Amino acid sequence: MRDVAIIGIGQTPVGEHWEMGLRQLALSAVQAALQDAAVERVDAVIVANALGGNLSGQNHLGALVADYVGMAGVEALRVEAADASGGLALRQGYLMVAGGAAETVLVLGVEKATDRTGSERDTALTTALDADYEAGPGATPAALAALLMRRYMYEHGVTLEQFEGFSINAHANGATNPFAMYRNKLRPGAFAKAPVVADPVNLFDSAPEGDGAAAVILTTTERALDSVPHPVRVRSSAAATDTLALHNRRDLLFLTAVNLAAGRAYERAGIGPDAIDLAELHDSFTVLTALQLEAAGFAPRGEGWKLAAEGALGRDGRLPISTFGGLKARGNPLGATGVYQAVEIARQLRGDAGENQIPGARLALALNLGGLGGTAVAHVFEAVGG
Amino acid sequence: MRDVAIIGIGQTPVGEHWEMGLRQLALSAVQAALQDAAVERVDAVIVANALGGNLSGQNHLGALVADYVGMAGVEALRVEAADASGGLALRQGYLMVAGGAAETVLVLGVEKATDRTGSERDTALTTALDADYEAGPGATPAALAALLMRRYMYEHGVTLEQFEGFSINAHANGATNPFAMYRNKLRPGAFAKAPVVADPVNLFDSAPEGDGAAAVILTTTERALDSVPHPVRVRSSAAATDTLALHNRRDLLFLTAVNLAAGRAYERAGIGPDAIDLAELHDSFTVLTALQLEAAGFAPRGEGWKLAAEGALGRDGRLPISTFGGLKARGNPLGATGVYQAVEIARQLRGDAGENQIPGARLALALNLGGLGGTAVAHVFEAVGG
Repeated sequence: MRDVAIIGIGQTPVGEHWEMGLRQLALSAVQAALQDAAVERVDAVIVANALGGNLSGQNHLGALVADYVGMAGVEALRVEAADASGGLALRQGYLMVAGGAAETVLVLGVEKATDRTGSERDTALTTALDADYEAGPGATPAALAALLMRRYMYEHGVTLEQFEGFSINAHANGATNPFAMYRNKLRPGAFAKAPVVADPVNLFDSAPEGDGAAAVILTTTERALDSVPHPVRVRSSAAATDTLALHNRRDLLFLTAVNLAAGRAYERAGIGPDAIDLAELHDSFTVLTALQLEAAGFAPRGEGWKLAAEGALGRDGRLPISTFGGLKARGNPLGATGVYQAVEIARQLRGDAGENQIPGARLALALNLGGLGGTAVAHVFEAVGG
Repeated sequence: MRDVAIIGIGQTPVGEHWEMGLRQLALSAVQAALQDAAVERVDAVIVANALGGNLSGQNHLGALVADYVGMAGVEALRVEAADASGGLALRQGYLMVAGGAAETVLVLGVEKATDRTGSERDTALTTALDADYEAGPGATPAALAALLMRRYMYEHGVTLEQFEGFSINAHANGATNPFAMYRNKLRPGAFAKAPVVADPVNLFDSAPEGDGAAAVILTTTERALDSVPHPVRVRSSAAATDTLALHNRRDLLFLTAVNLAAGRAYERAGIGPDAIDLAELHDSFTVLTALQLEAAGFAPRGEGWKLAAEGALGRDGRLPISTFGGLKARGNPLGATGVYQAVEIARQLRGDAGENQIPGARLALALNLGGLGGTAVAHVFEAVGG
């Protein structure tokens, strides 16, 4: 398969964009990415979106977006796997270039999450869960995250306070990201006192859903080196699944899909977790961040939380994560999240991350989850050129 | 890219399966396909589905299906492009094998269309259209098909009666297909007198939505020749888009996406339309069938309807279509349709189509549309071995 690289990136701020619909959000990110890559057309458009059908009455987004960005005719599709849509769309785009089906591909993540509120939005968000055994009986993503967190605290003897480092770090990084939904810093001690969402998950623990769009342009690394100063190589790509329903998992506190996806991505890249300079994890809930650190080989079982408590995840730490705020502070644009992660990592590896720059970063990992880890997508990115 | 072939097929009857949910429908088709291919696991699962999020509260179907069919861990995704989901999922599966990302891929189309009725179902079906400019103001797929049909009749001097051959042919073929939703034959003359849905589109003109699931297993042709007696080669694959909103099209009566997708598929296969022995078209409305015949090179502009009137589309005609009933009689399982088409064509090219067999068929075309042609997917299949 051919070597693949990112040659263009674009993103809109994550937030409440009541003045823009799906197509306008898409256009703003796509225009930025095309301009950045200095290309006008691509061979294929892949759109990641989780809830257009539920919240905007709009499915069939591949063709809609292709047309609205001025490329009607080009092949296009939508990829959906709840919040992991973005990562999987990136993987399909990667495979189209790697396999020789396309020379250039646009991968777009777009989501309108804030037009509907209350039970309409809650119902839509639960479509990521098992409809028959979880959503039907009334479970929500936050309720299930609470169940995981409670069990984690019990099994590993961790207190709520000991998770605060994850959110403090995310907000510290989001504070200097103009695309972030929340740019306030979190005062130490505030975390454990935040209003409860689903005990023990609280407001400062769970990531806010937001509207947003992010786009990347992919091509072969060979072409990329000829066309842009700092292409970002997609060194490896992998995905895996687990049961959607938590009750079917052999081990509640081990994210099997993350372990498989990250393991495959490391193997395909010929590296281990030690080689990773920074990571964008799917920090929709702090317990998921802890579990991802463990499943992806950054911490032993039951010790993922320690990395946050020890300050290892900050910009100058051993493994910087959520370097632009993560889902917690940049915001969680659901199906677009995986593409935001790729855009943010590209900025880091280009050395174009401004105040958020991790000095000398060459290899980065993105982990994107669907639901509570039913889908996991892992990508390893590498700085090339320059 | 590597040569790709179908080594296993499975399908459930299309109809009202109130006793089965998405996962049960999926399992029944997947089990049949795995058994047919004599394989137990695959490297990737691609699920085509249009309305799970809207009608069953279930998105995130890739992981759900992978788990339910006993393959948790494997990578999986859902592809969506309204009714063209199945064709695009097949294309992504084809590309994964062709490009070397996977040795075997399961492509599943699954849809639950009948659990909801009335406005709930109607609203879901319009998510294939442009939400802002078509569905919002009240247009439905049938209303837009009526607009196309009225214009077609006016421009080309065709009467309603002259479309009846399409539906008579579809029902004649569906009558001997145990998987078909409607197995009644249509009496000549009945078509033009059927109850009106959206003038001039009537009940015998429009395809009924149904529940269903169909699955194919793909691998390299090289492996296929070693493992099954009659593999079916995917000789070429292509997709294209057009505007969703009809009012944005330069020419209402020309399906640009079909023309592009079919043209690319012919070019990649190194053939022209004359080489095609049979075709499965997306006959959700008869006017779309006429327009597809024209855009795909089987008839000059304005003359697609003549093929039906002349009897050229029957089992012993020049270009047999809807050989198991098409969407009209087999039923329209929305996002699963493109996979049903592949299954039916595989049966024909294996010589395993029973009473519906087209003698000596070697090359077949599948055209799968999203909405009113916003997305078009074309595949050319070829009999090999035997």
